[in-house]
Formats: sequence, structure tokens, C-alpha cells
Amino acid sequence: MGASATTTPELYAMNGGDGRFSYAKNSFLQGHSVNASKEKIGEAIAEKLDLKILLSTSKTIRIVDVGCSVGPNTFLAIQNIIESIERKYQAQYLNINQKPEFQVFFNDLTSNDFNTLFSSLPPNRQYFAAGVPGSFHGRLFPEGSIHFFYSSIALHILSKAPEELLDKNSPSWNKGRIHYINAPDEVVNAYATQYAKGIEIFLDARAKEMVSGGMTVMSFPANPTGIPYSQTFTGAMFELLESSLLDLVKEGKISEAQVDSFNLPMYVPSLEEMMELVQKNGCFDIEKMELTSPGVHASMTNTSSMGKAIVMHVRAGMERMLIQHFGSQIIDELFNRYAKKFEEFPHHVLPSKKVQLFVVLKRK
Amino acid sequence: MGASATTTPELYAMNGGDGRFSYAKNSFLQGHSVNASKEKIGEAIAEKLDLKILLSTSKTIRIVDVGCSVGPNTFLAIQNIIESIERKYQAQYLNINQKPEFQVFFNDLTSNDFNTLFSSLPPNRQYFAAGVPGSFHGRLFPEGSIHFFYSSIALHILSKAPEELLDKNSPSWNKGRIHYINAPDEVVNAYATQYAKGIEIFLDARAKEMVSGGMTVMSFPANPTGIPYSQTFTGAMFELLESSLLDLVKEGKISEAQVDSFNLPMYVPSLEEMMELVQKNGCFDIEKMELTSPGVHASMTNTSSMGKAIVMHVRAGMERMLIQHFGSQIIDELFNRYAKKFEEFPHHVLPSKKVQLFVVLKRK
Repeated sequence: MGASATTTPELYAMNGGDGRFSYAKNSFLQGHSVNASKEKIGEAIAEKLDLKILLSTSKTIRIVDVGCSVGPNTFLAIQNIIESIERKYQAQYLNINQKPEFQVFFNDLTSNDFNTLFSSLPPNRQYFAAGVPGSFHGRLFPEGSIHFFYSSIALHILSKAPEELLDKNSPSWNKGRIHYINAPDEVVNAYATQYAKGIEIFLDARAKEMVSGGMTVMSFPANPTGIPYSQTFTGAMFELLESSLLDLVKEGKISEAQVDSFNLPMYVPSLEEMMELVQKNGCFDIEKMELTSPGVHASMTNTSSMGKAIVMHVRAGMERMLIQHFGSQIIDELFNRYAKKFEEFPHHVLPSKKVQLFVVLKRK
Repeated sequence: MGASATTTPELYAMNGGDGRFSYAKNSFLQGHSVNASKEKIGEAIAEKLDLKILLSTSKTIRIVDVGCSVGPNTFLAIQNIIESIERKYQAQYLNINQKPEFQVFFNDLTSNDFNTLFSSLPPNRQYFAAGVPGSFHGRLFPEGSIHFFYSSIALHILSKAPEELLDKNSPSWNKGRIHYINAPDEVVNAYATQYAKGIEIFLDARAKEMVSGGMTVMSFPANPTGIPYSQTFTGAMFELLESSLLDLVKEGKISEAQVDSFNLPMYVPSLEEMMELVQKNGCFDIEKMELTSPGVHASMTNTSSMGKAIVMHVRAGMERMLIQHFGSQIIDELFNRYAKKFEEFPHHVLPSKKVQLFVVLKRK
């Protein structure tokens, strides 16, 4: 297994800049998700965040967006969090002249376009901004320094695809597939195990970095119990990408071996899996864990403009890793095919709108 | 006076990336300065920093490089500061198993190339890294959150050149010059006043951001008392640039008005001026303030390779603002002329090697 057979994590970052295929211009899906979560986050802060405890040891509230990409969604989400905390402050305190200061850390992989992120920071922001490069699968902050972690549509990303998928002598060899849709149990298990390891590291790091009483709010793609992954929206999105790549194999434009050695570094867990991982970690109280609608549902995606936008969204998110593995010469054709398949796909057969997990944890 | 007549502060950042004219490849002069300051910083930490006080309220030591640019100098400087603090920790404490954690904030203007900075962070660093975009002429951090400010060759940069230099009806109109060398007193005073305002804002902001007992170490170009600015190395560097631009005016390649409306946003203070500003602020004890050698002196700069390197250094630092004002078409010719003038310049007539101010302040 050569080094070139795996995708390097740094290529998992979204497209930077502000060009046609940039994340900045193609992140409205995540924007829907931010909107859908807005009220829920406000509620969680109002009901569960105790500012008297947090402010007993610090005059500053430190907030992190884990996997922030380049905006504008992260700025909207942060604004909502700060406004919610300020409302809670007013509800808990009488003296509003001594409001806390806010410091916001925008985190994403080192390859994220922080230059674009920084240059688009809201000019009238009421917080001190900082960028933190590095994987959330590891420590990012000093011990006991963070009061609020936020993460939107990032936690389904693995630090890498499971290595055994590349081993021709293993029952987990993922021949002819780029993910675990319609794959044997061994492949699904390899993904699930890799995911669990990553989340264990994530929770362990965040537990160390948070102050007692601090809050973590996350939402990310999830698999509704009892529904096969291929019949969910996320599953269908990836299956159509796989099918587009296999078409290119048939036409000799890429090799079979190239597809065999490419595996998406993503896993969509169920509520039960996540629940078990948080409980196993033991450092957090689970204040909320529920399946929600991401704000965009299957029926909407059948409209042509929404469909096109979703294709652009997938491109903004995955282009870098696809180019690294398959080369840039096939990328336009790949996404043209993908767009066509997407248009023809009967989205209405997708049974569930609740394909996102909304999680509120409180550090014990 | 049109908006186009002034240079926007965001263009004061060094050249990004890692190309021929990048700061990353042309910052050895600053590197000499970092080396020259290394021992002095170690001494200041050993003698004056009280870790028992700092660690009584925090388990983390927070360090900032103000005006860090893109490396590698900032990484060397930070490494030296952390190692010095660790030595002091061992000298002050018996229990070395509970060493503090370090969080380092790399600060520069929003237009600084943070992507290059982040991708070149030392992989084995023993600290948590963050980037903070924004001008040091203003607040950057929450109140009472920083233990150590460091700044190398940045504090001579103004937030903007004085506006009255552009006013044709003012005695401060800076016709035919780009700086205050050989200028009437009114021009020098306009610069000095602008500088004083900026340093007042800087000291006020840092005083708020620092914890009591925290340390600020800065070194930056300074003007030795009694020596005309034009006879210092920095003065000569700028005078040769002005002379190169005036040559282009004579040849009709740029207009007189373009030179009249361009003024370098830099001021080189004397020790006495800085002393007065710190005392006026009142929040700091002055632990050390002395003129030092920047590690490169006039005789060295007469060697051809050093001379070429200095020209590249000036280009890396000033190209963006020169292009914004004069256009990119003249930039190669400008620096070719500058290089030639620099080569012919009798550096040995420069009287002083001590053209840098080394300052150690302690927050009261």
C-alpha cells in the first residue's frame, strides 16, 4: 500500500477563495443547517448554560467553531451564539454594565483558507477573533480554557479513511466502491470503528480543553435508525458520486485501481452510536441528542436550481481530495455526470427528512 | 484630498507566499535582529519575569508576537521565549511535572499571509498556535488575558502617514519627498505627532490586555540621539528609495504629483521619545530601554551579497504599498535603480551601529 493510495487529511478542507467553486459561494446547504439550528442553540443556552459558574473564573467567554471553513455561515452561527449568551447574561444578572468580553476561535484544518476567512470577518463584530489551524482529532487549546464549542456539519469527517479498505487480502478490501454504501459488513465495520476512534479522541480533547459547566453544541449528518444508508439523502449523494466515477472507469478515463484505492473519509453515525461514545467518554452530561431536519429536504432538492446548488456544494467540499487522487483533468466531466445523475434521481423516494443529529453536551 | 492619495494600512503587510520577493525568503535582516535580541530576552525573563505571580491566576502562559509576518523569524523568537520561560519555571519551582501550557497568538494585519504562516508552523511545537488578524493600533485580545507581548521591527510602522502631508496649503505639505529626511520641521513634527498618537493607542491597548506582572519585549528601529536621521542606516535606505522614485519622475515614468502624494507610513523614534510615551501611559514599569545593534552593521552591508539581500528585504516589505500607489509597471525598474544606488552608497560614513531600541516593560 503506497502513501499515494491514501488521501492526506489536509485536502479535506473546503475550496478556498471566492471563485465559482469556492465554499464561500457554495455553502448555502450548510447555511440552511445553521438557520435550522439557530433556535435550538438559543434554547440550549437559555435553559442549560449557567453563566454565573462560567464567569466566576473568567471575565472572557471563549467560543470555538470547530471546522468553521471560510464563512459566511460561521459568522452567522457565532453571532447567534453570542446574542443568545448576552440574553442569558441579562436574564441571570442585574448589572449589564459589566458584560463579559468574547473571544472567538475559528478552527479548521491548516489547509483551510484562513486568509479569506479573516478578510471577511464582520467589521462590526463584538468579539476578538482568532484562527486556529489544526485537526479536531487532537488537542487545539490549553486545558480548561474554552467555554463553548460549536460545530456544524464537520464531525462526520474522519481523520482518514480506514487503512484496511486498501488491503487486497482483507475482507474489508473496498473494491469497486468509494464508501460503505452496499458494501459488506466488514467495510461498514471498518468505517464505524475508525469513526468511533476519532470521536473518542475528539471528546477526550474537548473535555480537557473545556471549563466545567461549558457547553458543546454540534450538528452533523446522521443515519436515522432502521433506514439503510443508501436510502438517505447523504447516502444517495455519495452513491451518485461513486456511480459517476465508475462510468469514467468504464470509458477508460480513470482506472479501476484508482477507484479501488479511493475511499471517502466520512462516516454518518446513528444517534445510538453517538450516544454510546459520549457515555463511554464520561466527561459530559447529554443535555440533548435528537435527530433533526437539516432545513433542506428531499422534495426541495427536486427543484432544478436547488439541485444545481447541491452539486456545486459537493464540488466545493470534495474537489480538492478528488483532484489529488484522480487528477484535475477529469474533474469537470465527473461533476457534469454527477449533475446529470442528480437531476434524474427520484429524491421523493428518500424516506426521512431527519438526517441530522443535534447534540448539546455540558462539561461535568 | 482623494481617498486614493493615501495608502491603505492593509497594504503595509509584508509580501506573502514563498516566491522570490516574499518576506519568507527575504527576512534575514529581521532574523539577525531576532538573534541579536535572543540573549537579551532570555536575561529579561530570567531576571524580571515572576512566574509565581503569573501562574497564580492561570495554568496557561499566553504569548503574542505583534506584527509577526509569516516566519521563519517569528517561530525562532517564540521558541526562544518559551525556552527562557521554561528555564525560569525550573529555577522558580521544584515540581517540574506541572509545567504550564503555552498558547501563542501570531498577530499581524488582516492582509498578512496567514495561510503561509500556518502551513509553516513548526510541526513539533510545544504550544497551541492561533492567528490574530488586526492592527496593533487597537485592541486585539480580551482584558487581562496576555502574559507576554513580543514585537520585532514592527513598532516603527504608523497606522497611516500623517494626513496634513498631503495638504498643499499646509506648511507640512511634503512636496518632493516620501518621508521626513531633509524635510522642514513641520513635516518631522507631523510624523512625530502621528507616531506618538499611535504608540499611545498601542500602550493603552496592551495595558488592558495584559495581566499584572506580564512582560512586553519590543525591538524596533530607533534614531540615536544627536545623529541626523539621514545619516542612519534606516534613513539612508529610505533616502535612496526616494531618490530612485525622483529619477523616475525626471524621466516622466511617474508624475511629480504621485511622489508628492506618497508618504512612507513609518517613523523612527529616539529613546527619549519612547521613554516619554511609556511614562505618560503610566501602566508599565520600564525594566530596560536601550539602544542596541540590530546585528547587521554598515560595514557588513558593503559586501555585495549582503547589499543585494537588503534590497530584496526592502522590496518584500514595501512592494505592496508601492505597487498600490505607483502601479506594478514601474516596480522592477524602481528596485533595479534602488539596488544600483545602494551598491554605490558609501555605507562606511554611517556613524552608528546602535540603531535599534530594545525595550522591556512590565505591567504594573
